[in-house]
Amino acid sequence: MIDPQEVPRFAGVPTFMRSPHVYDLETASPDIAFLGVPYDDATSFRPGARFGPRAIRLASTLLKPYNPVTETDLSPVTIVDHDDVPVVPGYTEETFARIEARVSSVLETDVFPAIAGGDHSTTLAVLRAVAEKYGPVSLVQIDAHSDLWTEYFGEPYSHGTTVHHAIEEGLIDPSSSIRIGERGGLYGPEDVDRHDDAGIEYYPIDELEDRGIEEIGDRLRERVDGPTFATLDIDAVDPAYAPGTGTPSPGGLTSREFLRLIRSLRGTTLVGFDLVEVAPPYDDAAGSTATLAASATFEALCAAVDSSGPAGRQ
Amino acid sequence: MIDPQEVPRFAGVPTFMRSPHVYDLETASPDIAFLGVPYDDATSFRPGARFGPRAIRLASTLLKPYNPVTETDLSPVTIVDHDDVPVVPGYTEETFARIEARVSSVLETDVFPAIAGGDHSTTLAVLRAVAEKYGPVSLVQIDAHSDLWTEYFGEPYSHGTTVHHAIEEGLIDPSSSIRIGERGGLYGPEDVDRHDDAGIEYYPIDELEDRGIEEIGDRLRERVDGPTFATLDIDAVDPAYAPGTGTPSPGGLTSREFLRLIRSLRGTTLVGFDLVEVAPPYDDAAGSTATLAASATFEALCAAVDSSGPAGRQ
Amino acid sequence: MIDPQEVPRFAGVPTFMRSPHVYDLETASPDIAFLGVPYDDATSFRPGARFGPRAIRLASTLLKPYNPVTETDLSPVTIVDHDDVPVVPGYTEETFARIEARVSSVLETDVFPAIAGGDHSTTLAVLRAVAEKYGPVSLVQIDAHSDLWTEYFGEPYSHGTTVHHAIEEGLIDPSSSIRIGERGGLYGPEDVDRHDDAGIEYYPIDELEDRGIEEIGDRLRERVDGPTFATLDIDAVDPAYAPGTGTPSPGGLTSREFLRLIRSLRGTTLVGFDLVEVAPPYDDAAGSTATLAASATFEALCAAVDSSGPAGRQ
Amino acid sequence: MIDPQEVPRFAGVPTFMRSPHVYDLETASPDIAFLGVPYDDATSFRPGARFGPRAIRLASTLLKPYNPVTETDLSPVTIVDHDDVPVVPGYTEETFARIEARVSSVLETDVFPAIAGGDHSTTLAVLRAVAEKYGPVSLVQIDAHSDLWTEYFGEPYSHGTTVHHAIEEGLIDPSSSIRIGERGGLYGPEDVDRHDDAGIEYYPIDELEDRGIEEIGDRLRERVDGPTFATLDIDAVDPAYAPGTGTPSPGGLTSREFLRLIRSLRGTTLVGFDLVEVAPPYDDAAGSTATLAASATFEALCAAVDSSGPAGRQ
Amino acid sequence: MIDPQEVPRFAGVPTFMRSPHVYDLETASPDIAFLGVPYDDATSFRPGARFGPRAIRLASTLLKPYNPVTETDLSPVTIVDHDDVPVVPGYTEETFARIEARVSSVLETDVFPAIAGGDHSTTLAVLRAVAEKYGPVSLVQIDAHSDLWTEYFGEPYSHGTTVHHAIEEGLIDPSSSIRIGERGGLYGPEDVDRHDDAGIEYYPIDELEDRGIEEIGDRLRERVDGPTFATLDIDAVDPAYAPGTGTPSPGGLTSREFLRLIRSLRGTTLVGFDLVEVAPPYDDAAGSTATLAASATFEALCAAVDSSGPAGRQ
Amino acid sequence: MIDPQEVPRFAGVPTFMRSPHVYDLETASPDIAFLGVPYDDATSFRPGARFGPRAIRLASTLLKPYNPVTETDLSPVTIVDHDDVPVVPGYTEETFARIEARVSSVLETDVFPAIAGGDHSTTLAVLRAVAEKYGPVSLVQIDAHSDLWTEYFGEPYSHGTTVHHAIEEGLIDPSSSIRIGERGGLYGPEDVDRHDDAGIEYYPIDELEDRGIEEIGDRLRERVDGPTFATLDIDAVDPAYAPGTGTPSPGGLTSREFLRLIRSLRGTTLVGFDLVEVAPPYDDAAGSTATLAASATFEALCAAVDSSGPAGRQ
Repeated sequence: MIDPQEVPRFAGVPTFMRSPHVYDLETASPDIAFLGVPYDDATSFRPGARFGPRAIRLASTLLKPYNPVTETDLSPVTIVDHDDVPVVPGYTEETFARIEARVSSVLETDVFPAIAGGDHSTTLAVLRAVAEKYGPVSLVQIDAHSDLWTEYFGEPYSHGTTVHHAIEEGLIDPSSSIRIGERGGLYGPEDVDRHDDAGIEYYPIDELEDRGIEEIGDRLRERVDGPTFATLDIDAVDPAYAPGTGTPSPGGLTSREFLRLIRSLRGTTLVGFDLVEVAPPYDDAAGSTATLAASATFEALCAAVDSSGPAGRQ
Repeated sequence: MIDPQEVPRFAGVPTFMRSPHVYDLETASPDIAFLGVPYDDATSFRPGARFGPRAIRLASTLLKPYNPVTETDLSPVTIVDHDDVPVVPGYTEETFARIEARVSSVLETDVFPAIAGGDHSTTLAVLRAVAEKYGPVSLVQIDAHSDLWTEYFGEPYSHGTTVHHAIEEGLIDPSSSIRIGERGGLYGPEDVDRHDDAGIEYYPIDELEDRGIEEIGDRLRERVDGPTFATLDIDAVDPAYAPGTGTPSPGGLTSREFLRLIRSLRGTTLVGFDLVEVAPPYDDAAGSTATLAASATFEALCAAVDSSGPAGRQ
Repeated sequence: MIDPQEVPRFAGVPTFMRSPHVYDLETASPDIAFLGVPYDDATSFRPGARFGPRAIRLASTLLKPYNPVTETDLSPVTIVDHDDVPVVPGYTEETFARIEARVSSVLETDVFPAIAGGDHSTTLAVLRAVAEKYGPVSLVQIDAHSDLWTEYFGEPYSHGTTVHHAIEEGLIDPSSSIRIGERGGLYGPEDVDRHDDAGIEYYPIDELEDRGIEEIGDRLRERVDGPTFATLDIDAVDPAYAPGTGTPSPGGLTSREFLRLIRSLRGTTLVGFDLVEVAPPYDDAAGSTATLAASATFEALCAAVDSSGPAGRQ
Repeated sequence: MIDPQEVPRFAGVPTFMRSPHVYDLETASPDIAFLGVPYDDATSFRPGARFGPRAIRLASTLLKPYNPVTETDLSPVTIVDHDDVPVVPGYTEETFARIEARVSSVLETDVFPAIAGGDHSTTLAVLRAVAEKYGPVSLVQIDAHSDLWTEYFGEPYSHGTTVHHAIEEGLIDPSSSIRIGERGGLYGPEDVDRHDDAGIEYYPIDELEDRGIEEIGDRLRERVDGPTFATLDIDAVDPAYAPGTGTPSPGGLTSREFLRLIRSLRGTTLVGFDLVEVAPPYDDAAGSTATLAASATFEALCAAVDSSGPAGRQ
Repeated sequence: MIDPQEVPRFAGVPTFMRSPHVYDLETASPDIAFLGVPYDDATSFRPGARFGPRAIRLASTLLKPYNPVTETDLSPVTIVDHDDVPVVPGYTEETFARIEARVSSVLETDVFPAIAGGDHSTTLAVLRAVAEKYGPVSLVQIDAHSDLWTEYFGEPYSHGTTVHHAIEEGLIDPSSSIRIGERGGLYGPEDVDRHDDAGIEYYPIDELEDRGIEEIGDRLRERVDGPTFATLDIDAVDPAYAPGTGTPSPGGLTSREFLRLIRSLRGTTLVGFDLVEVAPPYDDAAGSTATLAASATFEALCAAVDSSGPAGRQ
Repeated sequence: MIDPQEVPRFAGVPTFMRSPHVYDLETASPDIAFLGVPYDDATSFRPGARFGPRAIRLASTLLKPYNPVTETDLSPVTIVDHDDVPVVPGYTEETFARIEARVSSVLETDVFPAIAGGDHSTTLAVLRAVAEKYGPVSLVQIDAHSDLWTEYFGEPYSHGTTVHHAIEEGLIDPSSSIRIGERGGLYGPEDVDRHDDAGIEYYPIDELEDRGIEEIGDRLRERVDGPTFATLDIDAVDPAYAPGTGTPSPGGLTSREFLRLIRSLRGTTLVGFDLVEVAPPYDDAAGSTATLAASATFEALCAAVDSSGPAGRQ
C-alpha cells in the first residue's frame, strides 16, 4: 500500500487500497484478493452496480490500514487487487459460469476472496464456488430483502432469488445462517411463511431497533457455525447513507449500525465475503455510498484477519 | 396493481402503485383515490413541489402490497390514480378554489383521499373540503414548522400560514390536534406564545428525542378524537433523508421515526391525509425523498385501512 | 391530448404527450401507438436505457401538436400510449421474443409504431416484426456507431451487433439503407472493410460536416426505397446535447442538425421508427437528453404523417 | 469593482461583478444599476427562476471589465448592485405592482436598469415602468417562444402572455420590434396567424440558420427605432448551453450566436434590458447557464455603453 | 437583519443572515463579525472548501433569530458580514499570514469572530491570532480526525497537522482541551500513542455512542477552562448529513447530535469559533451540508451570546 | 490494451486505455507514457483538476485503437500508464520541482510524454523539463485564456501566468508559437498590448469563426517550427461541451472544432503534450468533459504517431 503521507490519495491509478494490481495469484501468493464482479443485469429496478467495483476502488484510496476500534492492523497483511471477472452483459447464466470459475481459482490458491458486486444475483455463483470447496456454509446476510423468491419474469435467476437457489442447491446451511436488516412491503402474507420455512433466522429492522445492535451482533456470532460467508447488500443501509443502490428501501440501518454489525463477524470462521448492489449512477456527488462500502469492506477485512478463516491471524 | 414479478417495476406508465388511471370515481367506486395537488407558488424559499405528485408516482412503482409489520394487506383494497388538480400557477386563491372543489367531489363519493402536494399552503384548501363534510377535524401535523403565522409579505395565504387559517376558519379542532417534529429558529419569543395560544399540543424534536417515538405515538392516539386528518410535511424528516423539500431544517426525524409515527395513526378515525412539500428539483439522484414519501404514503394507506375511517376494514 | 392551456404540463399522469393510456389497440384503433421497450442489459458500457421510455414520456408533456416548420398538424391524428413491453432483465433472447410479439401485434392492427428504447440491441427484435410484415425494409440509421460487429463476449446479441444480424437475417436491404453520424475510433482497419462490405451507404461526421446537413438529407431521401424504418440512436448527437446515453461519443451532431435530419424522412414510406439509448441516470438535471428525444420523436411523428406509410396523410 | 488579481474571485460577498451593494441610487448616482426580480410563479412548467438573480451574481464574479471584441471598457462606468424587488410568492398582480414601482424609481434617477429575472411574466411589469417614462418602446426579444398567447388557465398573466399584453397596453411598438430565436411546436396553425398579426418582425431558428447571425444582427439594428428595450430569454439558447431554464426547447442558439446577437444592440438607443428565465435548480453542476447569462449581461452592458441610451458614452 | 416576512429569503444579496456587509469594524462596532476564510489548498483529498463561506452565506438566509430550545434571542445582537480574507491560492504560508492579520484586526476591536472555512489548515492561523490576544486557549474540537500528524508530503502545514502545530506553538492548552467525533482508520498503533501523548481528552464515536451525547456534552463543559475556542469540522458529522466535505468518514454524528454538542458550549468563555471543511462542489443539490453548517453556526452564535466571552450577555 | 470485445469496458482497474501500469519506463521501454499531474492549487476560481488524471483514465476505457479519419493505428504502438507525479498540496514551487523531475526522467528514456493535468500552472514545470532537453520549443496553445499575466495575488506562479514565465525563462520561442481559442473579458486595453508584445500569434474565437477551422489549422502547421509542445486547455471548448473546468468561458470551441484542431498537429515535430484543467467535481453526471478529454488525448496521440517527434512512425 502506497504511503498517503508521501503520495496524496488523489494521485495514481486507483486499485483497491492502492494495492498491487495482480492477475496471477499463485506467484503473488497474497493473504487477500480484492475481486470485482461487475454484473448488474439481473436487477428488478435500477441497474448500475456494474460500476460498483470501480467506485469502491476509488473510495478505498481514503482507507488507512489500522483499525483503532478493533486494534486490527492490516499493514502486515498482503492485499492485492485481482481485477474483475469478465462478465457477459445480457447473459446471466454464462456470466455465472465465469464468476464461479474465477472465484474457484482464487479459493484454490487459499487466498481470501474479498468480492465487490455487482447485483445480488452474482452471489449465487460465488456461493457455488465456495460450497465446492467448503461444503454448505453458514450465511450471514445483511440485506433489506430476503432474496428468497423463486423466480422473476418466468426465469430462475435474479437478484431477488439468490438465497432461495442457494438453499435449493445445498450451498448454504439455513440452520446456521442469519439475515439482518429486512424491511418494506411484501407481495402477501405467504411471503412471511416463505421466510419462516426457509429456516434462516432473521431480524427485520423493527426487531433490530427494539433489541439494539449489540444483541443482534451477539446473536450473529452464536448462530453461525463452521465456514461462514458474509453477503453484505448495501441496501441494508438506509438510502440517506447509501442512496447509490438498485432497490432502495427507506427505514434502514445507519452507517454506525452497519459498521458495528460487520465487526460482529470477528471470531467466526470467515471464508469470504461480498459487498453488493453499490450502483454509482445513483450515488450522490460525494460518492457517499461507495465511501461507506469501502469502509464496510475495511471492517470486513479486519474481521477476516480476526477470524479463524484463511486470512485469520488468530 | 400490476404484478411486479411479471412486469418489471421500471416498465410502463407510472401511475400511483401502477394502479388504474381513473377520472370518474363514481363509476370506478374504489376504496382509495390518490390525488395530486401540484401547486408550489405560495412558498417562502424553494419551489418545485409542483413536481411532487409525479415523483411520488414514479417512486411508488417500488411498493409491494403487504405490510409485514402491521400485517396489513392492500391487495384486496381498490386504489386508483385520480390524476391531479388543474392548478393555476401564480394565482393562489383561484387554485385553492379548484383544490377544494376536486377534494369535495372525492369525498362525495365516500372514497378515501390520499393526497400528494404541492406545498403546504394547499392543505388549507383540502381542509376546507374535509371540514365541509365532517365539521372541524382533529389534525395530526408532522412538520418541522408550525405554519401558524398570520400572513407573509402582506398576503394571507402561504405555506407558513395554513394552520393559523385552518383554526380561524374553524376547519380543525385544536383541542384534539397534535403537532410533532418542530425545530429550528423562530422570529422571536412571541412565536412561542403564538404556538401555546393556538391550542394544538406539540412536541418539538428535542422533546421527542427525550421521550422516544413510542411515547409520542401513544400520545398521538390519545389526543385525536373523531374524524382525523393527517398532514405529513416531508420536511419533518431530516434533510439527510429528505433533501428534496422547500424549506429544509436540519436536526429532524430519521426515516424510521417518521414511518413509525405514521403507523401510530392506526386505530384512529382517519378520513384523509396529505403528504406535502416533496420538491424533486432538490432531491438527490436516487430520488430518496420521493422514495421515502412513497413509503410514508404506503404506511398511511395501511393506517387508513386499519382505521375506522372510510377506508377502514376493521 | 390534454389542453396545456387548461391543465398545466406539470400536472397529471405522464403518458406520452398526455395521450390516452391504451392496452387494447384493436378497440381504440388509433393512428399511432407509442410503445416503450425498457431493456438495457445488452450494453457494453453504461446501462440505464430501461428508464428511457418513462423519461421520454415525462419530457413529452412539453410538446405542442403543430409543427410550424413543416406545417404538420398532429391535432387530428390519434395517438395513444401503448405502455411498455414486459422485458426480462438479464435474459436477452427471451426479451427479444417478447418485443417481437408485441410489435407484431401492433403492426397487425395497422397502427404506426413509435418506439422508445431501450438499448440498440432491441431494434433487432423490432426489425424481425417489421420484416415479417413488410419484408426487408430500407433502414435509416442515425447513429455514432455502425453496430456491425458480429459478436461481443462470445455471444451474438448486443447493442453493437444489431445491424450485422439484421442484414444476416434478411430483415433490411442494405442497398437501400443509409447510416449517418458515425465517428470515433474503431478496433482496426478491418472495421472499415466491414463497413464497406455491409453495403449500407454511410456518412461519418467529418463527411457530413463538409457536405452540410441539407445535402445529406437529400441523399437520405434518394437512397431509401419502399417500406422504410428509421432507427434513431440518441448517441448520434454530441454528448453536450445528449449526455444521457450509454456509450457517448464526442464530436457528434448538434440538436439542430439532428432535428433537420429527421425532417428529411418526410416523403418516404415510413412504416415505423425507434429512438434508442436514452439513459436517464446519466442525463443532466434538466433532462436535456430526454427533452431532445421527445422533440425528435415529435419530428419523426410529423414525418410519419407526411409520409406514404401507415400514418401518412398525404 | 474589486481587483481579481488582489482578491480571488471566489472570495467575498457575491454582489453583481463584486460592485457596491447600494439601496439608495439617488445618493450613489451610478451609471448602471443591476436589479433582481426573483419571481417565478407564473410559469407553465418548471419554477426556479426566483434564484436567477443570485446565480447570475455568483457567476458574474468571473467577469472582467474590458471587452476586446467591441473595445468597450466598463472600468470607468459605475455599476452598483441595487438588490432585488421584494416579490410576493403566489400573488402575481401584487408582485407586478412592486416590480413596476421599483423600476420606475430607478428610471427616475436616470440610471440604466440591468435587470435579472425571474420568469418572463415579470417583463410586463418592467415594460409598464419603461413605457411610463419613454412611451411605447422598440422591443428586441431573443426568445424560444413568442409569448403572444392571451391567457393561461383562465388568467391573463403568465410567462407565455407577456408580449401580447405589452402590445395591448401600448407599452411597445410592434412595428419597430423584432423577435429572434423561436422554435418548437405551436398549438395550431392559428398561432402562426397570431404571430403575423402581432406586427413584430420575427426570425425563427430555421430562418436564422439559413441567413446567418450577421444578417439577422444587421436586421435588428435596422428594425428598431428610438428608445429600445431588450428582453433576453435564456431559453433562446439551446439546452446544451443553457439547461437551467423553465421551458427548455431543443434546437436553439449556440452561445456564440447568442453573444453575437447581443452585440448587435450596439448603436441603438438602449434604455434598459432584462435577462430572464435562468432557473438554477435545473442548471448543471458548473452553473453553465448562469455563467452564460453573466457573459450575456456583460455583452448587453457593453452594448448599453456603446449606445445612445442613458448609459451611452458615444 | 432583513425581515423575511417582508422580503422573501430568496431575494437579495446573500450576506450572512442578510446582515450588513461591513469592511470597517471599528466604525460599525458590532457584537459579532462573520468572516470567511476561503482557502482549501492544504487538503489531502478533495478541494472545494474555498466556496464554503459563500455556501454558508446562501444557506444562512433561512435562519431566524430566536432559538426556542435555548431561549436565546439574536435580535438585539448586532451581527455583520465582514467579507473574506484575501487568500493566495497555492501559497499556504503567505495565506496564513493574511488570515492571522485579519483575525487579529477583528480581535483588536473586541468583536466576536464567527469564522467560516476553508479547510482545517486555516485554523492554525486563526489560533495564532487568538493566542496572541488570549494566550493558550482551551480548544473544543468536533472532528472526525485528530489533525495531530506532524507533516504531510514533507511539508509542515496541512489540514491534517493543525492541532499538532497548535500545541507545538503553544497556542492551545491540551490539558483543558477536548476532541469529539473521531473515527475511521489510522496509519498504525503509533497513532494511538500520538493521540494519548498529545494530552487532549478525546471521545471517539464508539465511546460517544456508548455514553450518550448528554454525558459528553457535560464532560466538555467540565474540561474547558478560561478562554475557549471551538473548531467545528463539518466532517465530524456523517456523510449522510454532510456529504459536502473534503475527507468524508462514514459512521459519524447525526445532525441532532452535532447541534446538541454545540449547545454544550453555553456557559463557557467562548472567544471565537470556526466551522471548516464545507466543500460545496461535493454537496447535494439541496445544499444540505451548507444548510446544516448554517444551523450549526446559528447554535454556536447562540452559545457565544450565552457565554462569558466577548459576545456574552450573561 | 485489453480487448473490449472480450472484457467489457466497465470491468477492471482503470488505467489509461487499460494499458499496463508501469513505474519503471527504462525496463518497459514503451513508445508513449501517460502521466498524470494532479495539482490544482494555483487556480483563481474553481479547484478540482487534481482529479483530472483519474477521470481521463476512466473515460479512456471507451477508446478504441484505430482512427478512421486519419487512418492512424495505435495497436502497434506501446502505451503505458506511468501513474501520477506525487504533488504537494498547498506548495506550488515544491510541486513544480517534482513535476519537472518526473517529466525529465520520462524524456531521458526517449519516451513520448502524454500528460494529463492538473491546472495550467503545471505546464510551466513540464516546459522546464522539455526545454532542458530540446531548448526553446514551439508552443501550440489551445486555450480560452492567454495565461500571459505576470503575477496573481503578489505571487508569480498561477494558472494565469504560465506562458508569461515560459517566455521569460526562455522555454518557448514565441515567434514559432500560436494560441487559439481566446475569448471573454480582459482587465483593460493594456492586456491587448501585452498579448501583442508577447510575440505569440493568436486567433481569438471571433477570428476563428470568421476564418473557419481549416484555415486556422493550416496556419498552425505553418507557424510551428522544430520541436513542438502542445498544451491543450479544455476550457478552450465551450462549457456546453466541457463544463468540468476551473474557469469556464462561454462562447468557446465545439467538440468537432476542438478535435479537428488537434488533428492539425499531424506532420509537426511533436515532442509532447499536456491536456489540462479537467475538473471532475464540476463535470456532468455523464462525465462529458472527461470523455471529450479522452477523445482529445486519443487524437493527440494519433498526431504524435503521425509526426516526426519521438513517437512518430513516419
